Amino acid sequence: MSEETILERRKRLLGAGAPLFYDEPVHIVRGEGVYLYDADGKEYLDVYNNVPNVGHCHPHVVEALHRQSTLLNVHTRYLHETVLDYAERLTALHDETLSMAFFTCSGTEANELALRMARFITGGQGIICSNATYHGNSEAVDELATLFHDGRTGSKRVKAVPYPESYRPISDTEGAALADEYAELVRKAIEEFKEEGIGFAGLLFCPIFANEGLPKVPDTYMAKAVALVREAGGLYIADEVQSGFARTGEHMWGYQVSAVAPDIATMGKPMGNGHPLAGLVARADLVNDFRKEVMYFNTFGGNPVQCAVGMAVLDVIEKENLQENSKLVGEYIRKGLRKLKDKHEIIGDVRGHGLFNGLELVKDRTTKEGATAETSRVVNELKERGILLSKIGIQDNILKMRPPLPFSTENADLLLSTLDDVLRGI
Amino acid sequence: MSEETILERRKRLLGAGAPLFYDEPVHIVRGEGVYLYDADGKEYLDVYNNVPNVGHCHPHVVEALHRQSTLLNVHTRYLHETVLDYAERLTALHDETLSMAFFTCSGTEANELALRMARFITGGQGIICSNATYHGNSEAVDELATLFHDGRTGSKRVKAVPYPESYRPISDTEGAALADEYAELVRKAIEEFKEEGIGFAGLLFCPIFANEGLPKVPDTYMAKAVALVREAGGLYIADEVQSGFARTGEHMWGYQVSAVAPDIATMGKPMGNGHPLAGLVARADLVNDFRKEVMYFNTFGGNPVQCAVGMAVLDVIEKENLQENSKLVGEYIRKGLRKLKDKHEIIGDVRGHGLFNGLELVKDRTTKEGATAETSRVVNELKERGILLSKIGIQDNILKMRPPLPFSTENADLLLSTLDDVLRGI
Repeated sequence: MSEETILERRKRLLGAGAPLFYDEPVHIVRGEGVYLYDADGKEYLDVYNNVPNVGHCHPHVVEALHRQSTLLNVHTRYLHETVLDYAERLTALHDETLSMAFFTCSGTEANELALRMARFITGGQGIICSNATYHGNSEAVDELATLFHDGRTGSKRVKAVPYPESYRPISDTEGAALADEYAELVRKAIEEFKEEGIGFAGLLFCPIFANEGLPKVPDTYMAKAVALVREAGGLYIADEVQSGFARTGEHMWGYQVSAVAPDIATMGKPMGNGHPLAGLVARADLVNDFRKEVMYFNTFGGNPVQCAVGMAVLDVIEKENLQENSKLVGEYIRKGLRKLKDKHEIIGDVRGHGLFNGLELVKDRTTKEGATAETSRVVNELKERGILLSKIGIQDNILKMRPPLPFSTENADLLLSTLDDVLRGI
Repeated sequence: MSEETILERRKRLLGAGAPLFYDEPVHIVRGEGVYLYDADGKEYLDVYNNVPNVGHCHPHVVEALHRQSTLLNVHTRYLHETVLDYAERLTALHDETLSMAFFTCSGTEANELALRMARFITGGQGIICSNATYHGNSEAVDELATLFHDGRTGSKRVKAVPYPESYRPISDTEGAALADEYAELVRKAIEEFKEEGIGFAGLLFCPIFANEGLPKVPDTYMAKAVALVREAGGLYIADEVQSGFARTGEHMWGYQVSAVAPDIATMGKPMGNGHPLAGLVARADLVNDFRKEVMYFNTFGGNPVQCAVGMAVLDVIEKENLQENSKLVGEYIRKGLRKLKDKHEIIGDVRGHGLFNGLELVKDRTTKEGATAETSRVVNELKERGILLSKIGIQDNILKMRPPLPFSTENADLLLSTLDDVLRGI
């Protein structure tokens, strides 16, 4: 079937506005490891997809999915052990205070539940998020989607604070002094919630500020911000949907980058390598207080198939040393990107953690005006040359590099040399 | 592992309040067709689970899941055809006005999206639901959970109207006159929304009022209620999460029982036979208007694995004539239940559609006081005798019978004779 026919069917069945990547979309038919293949057999190096975290169609994960689907797939109101084995293994990987788990089908559902828990437990409604973020697609979670609304939140009960931006900071201080200036904005938001009678429930951040463009967060910022949140009786919710499961290389979880454990950590995308599996871990007292009063049940959440898949993903991360690979290959990529920065004036900044990196493209290194159109051209040109990645940031001018974790230095070399070549032509 | 150890681990890892069936929970390890098996090898006839709609671990569905998981599992922002094939097949099964689809991971997400669409499109906030319902676990959808809050909604923007109760109707009229009385309450709720400045967005019902206890709805009620909704500029959202996919026997969709097509139909539970697959179909103009303005993306929604599984479920429904089976065996069960009613004074009413039936147990046929404690004893005693079912209704006094669709007349005989025996001992 031709791409035009597919596009026409898509418009008819899903609507013209259904989101699609690239000026000329790719028609993907197969995935394996770090590669995707289109209908013509063309190979693409996947530098975008974090959902197939341990590689597209990983045989160990597929086998676990198949085996458990053949045996039993039923809800958690009967006893079965797989959900307990997985909850035990997952909480053991987290900070020891996060000892209980809920399972859901998507990161949106996990963030929904975390917000419900925080508001129920604190009795306050106010939630602080960043001013360039996105955490999911439900009504309550969409109130935090400042990235798509010029920094504005969707409700009075959600306030956005500027994220700790390192490339265009709010003042010319740095380090602890800059951290203090950003943390002061959190304090102010909390105070406003209290004055307005909304009350305060907590702060929800991606701990590496992925959608914001992976800023280099001043060392002391998270500790200061979270201390203010807790003093005010609020909870810190870390959204690990993008930053979790060894993505940052140095750590299993994004919150470990700043060494501040949250009260609730939500997870999603990479958790099931593409199988709809998500959830949260939280302090036991929070879960028990919530469970005591609120009937929460998730039909598919925690079923034996989800949990068998989740365990298989953890198996592969461990057996294939993917956290170490994320760290080493991530460093290798950043080193290569910094070399490209010496050659290409358009590169304003290189940032990232492990195999999650951002390359900020600017029109001018002094004004730091985002090279938005050029970034789009780079993304489309890379696709033509067989490399899939995307862009982020409020100016849409940051190349987002977030491949499956089994990404090798050879894969990195191809990415870097192709990027070098494309940037030469921009 | 002993059941006590499992319960202790569950309490420690999921919390004491995690919902569980039965006074002494069952430990299930395997499922096949209409049977579940516990750790001791005991066989249970499954008269509860509608999620494994075409039978537990159906080999055709498992094979499709396995095949597609081996090939490709990626989001819908690349082109792939499986999502289009499935959307085409699914919309073709619906009323011709419902020609576009969205895919999500759960019925909750589908209802969330339907509410967002209705509110966005109408500009109103007001939603009407029934006074004994449940549609999902997110904050916005939970506002409709009147079943757990004595008929009260969770917000001023949601009003509950009494569902068209047939066993304890609001007046001693019947037929069209009774339908008019119930519809008048819908008209009144719409008026109140307008007077209160909340505006009106629409009405969301399970078209067979499953959680309400499967009342015999007066023939003209739905047409009247929906006409009022549309006159006031609102949308009719049918929640097909329980009533869809041939459950009612006579029809593929619950809304066909009253022959009133909705503007949006949401689907979930049985759609993927246990795989997290859900979504909605809607009028094309609604989808296009919403898509034009609102960025909605669902990471796992519509991925090729979901859609391959969804198609396999439709294959089985067709090839195994499960809609016809649902109709015939459902009628057979209701006939048997009516015979039991002649024998057992505790049976107040027999109701249902296809393979979704309710048996209302009462202390007294004149006062119709619910036999709540007795119903619980029946459910637990049936479990001891190898039959799994549950209860519904605001008094928790209605036995809920909703087995996988390949339920045979032999299975029905076992259900009926065991129930007869248990009721004799109550």
